[in-house]
Amino acid sequence: MSQIIEDSEVDIVIRALRRKIFCRFHLIVVKDPDFEENLQIPPGFDYHVYTKSDMVQILGSTTTAISFSGHSCWYFGYLVSHKKYIVSIDDDCILARDDQGHLIDVVAQHISNLIQPATPFFFNTLYDPYRNGSDFMRGYPFRLRSGVNYVLSCGLWLNPADYGAPTQAVKPDERNHCYIDVVLTVPTQAMMPVSGINIGFNREVMGLALFPGLRLSREGKIRWETMEDIWCGMCAKVVCDHLGLGVKSCLPYVWRGDSGDALESVKRDGKG
Amino acid sequence: MSQIIEDSEVDIVIRALRRKIFCRFHLIVVKDPDFEENLQIPPGFDYHVYTKSDMVQILGSTTTAISFSGHSCWYFGYLVSHKKYIVSIDDDCILARDDQGHLIDVVAQHISNLIQPATPFFFNTLYDPYRNGSDFMRGYPFRLRSGVNYVLSCGLWLNPADYGAPTQAVKPDERNHCYIDVVLTVPTQAMMPVSGINIGFNREVMGLALFPGLRLSREGKIRWETMEDIWCGMCAKVVCDHLGLGVKSCLPYVWRGDSGDALESVKRDGKG
Repeated sequence: MSQIIEDSEVDIVIRALRRKIFCRFHLIVVKDPDFEENLQIPPGFDYHVYTKSDMVQILGSTTTAISFSGHSCWYFGYLVSHKKYIVSIDDDCILARDDQGHLIDVVAQHISNLIQPATPFFFNTLYDPYRNGSDFMRGYPFRLRSGVNYVLSCGLWLNPADYGAPTQAVKPDERNHCYIDVVLTVPTQAMMPVSGINIGFNREVMGLALFPGLRLSREGKIRWETMEDIWCGMCAKVVCDHLGLGVKSCLPYVWRGDSGDALESVKRDGKG
Repeated sequence: MSQIIEDSEVDIVIRALRRKIFCRFHLIVVKDPDFEENLQIPPGFDYHVYTKSDMVQILGSTTTAISFSGHSCWYFGYLVSHKKYIVSIDDDCILARDDQGHLIDVVAQHISNLIQPATPFFFNTLYDPYRNGSDFMRGYPFRLRSGVNYVLSCGLWLNPADYGAPTQAVKPDERNHCYIDVVLTVPTQAMMPVSGINIGFNREVMGLALFPGLRLSREGKIRWETMEDIWCGMCAKVVCDHLGLGVKSCLPYVWRGDSGDALESVKRDGKG
């Protein structure tokens, strides 16, 4: 079931533009409507910038029920993409290094994930059976060894983990430096908190499910003040389970910058 | 839900006796009825040896339907144990080293696993939330964060992986040197090939499920010629799912020795 994905089949959806690994791909740059400054885009990128006026033109000015500001501006990028695959990475992330000290090409790893099958119907104890040097364990049913199509690749993060505001507030100094070199299929029927920080997906299959259907009324600009990605990630997982498609978690990692004071977020929520 | 497990609550079930890390615990040594030589047990161990005559005395001579020879002699050890916890390790295994080069205390890690809760009802993307330096990710339901009791710890293996005979025959030189420093709860409803090579479990809860209810008529002495552990492992997983209990996979690792010619096993099966 392995296949080849051409670079031209991939859109990268980002808010900022400072990653050289992205220059092979078409970029959809969504300018947050709340972002006042002019974008400074260096030469050498194949990109299209979408601004608030594009949003109004494409969706109509009356669609105020869906606001594409803050983290949700990514979703506008998903809507306007015509490519088969999308890789989406938060703007506070830079490239991480693996346990050997090599920079991780996050796009290449998402693409590598997406061309491999997934095994949601039976857990393989020695991780990803399609990886070089691994295989299916004794007792793994032969009829399930060809796997199913894999459509959603959920990457992880080094430095601050993606904790909710209360956890982050009580563990402000905790950092994740545990690089785990595996890709795991999340079994069917198992729910998971899909984080929008670092994902790749098959837009043709999952595009409609990855949409901010539920947003907090007091959503902020920091990940722990949002939950749209968690909600639509769970919807996407349910859709994948229903269609018999695969979701994987773990590689690739990105390196997240520190941002904000979670205790303030918790206090604000407490007042609300 | 964390607790302390006393050494006196643990039985180690083995066929051979050459591991110093076991001397703190009570050992159940089951002499394979097909093993002719006398056992040479060094001093310093607290053990009880069970032989074929014990099996006949305890189970009656007419119980020939269940043969406790070969890998199945372990299960006799499970039957006669009175301890709350059992750790069971194949006799071709020695202690493995972690990625820092330190010897892994396989019993301590199984016990450490068994005193932590498990999270089978919602997958935590950043692995084991109860481990130092980790926690529940943003969006993980708060009502599920206390976890459930964890009763079956499935460890892994370095050097030869636990492939079935056909896979082993086509990949005779493949070795697993990928040490993954995580403990994963296998989600509820997800089946898995539980290997009997290296497991720890709560005997009071899982003892009855871990019994060789289905054996191959031409079962051999090499792991890939057996499937009793796979079958009763799946039964145990179904029981755990039904009772809302947890099963984890990955740590601790053991180092397996090479044994046998898988191609011969496949040829024999082909003739059968």
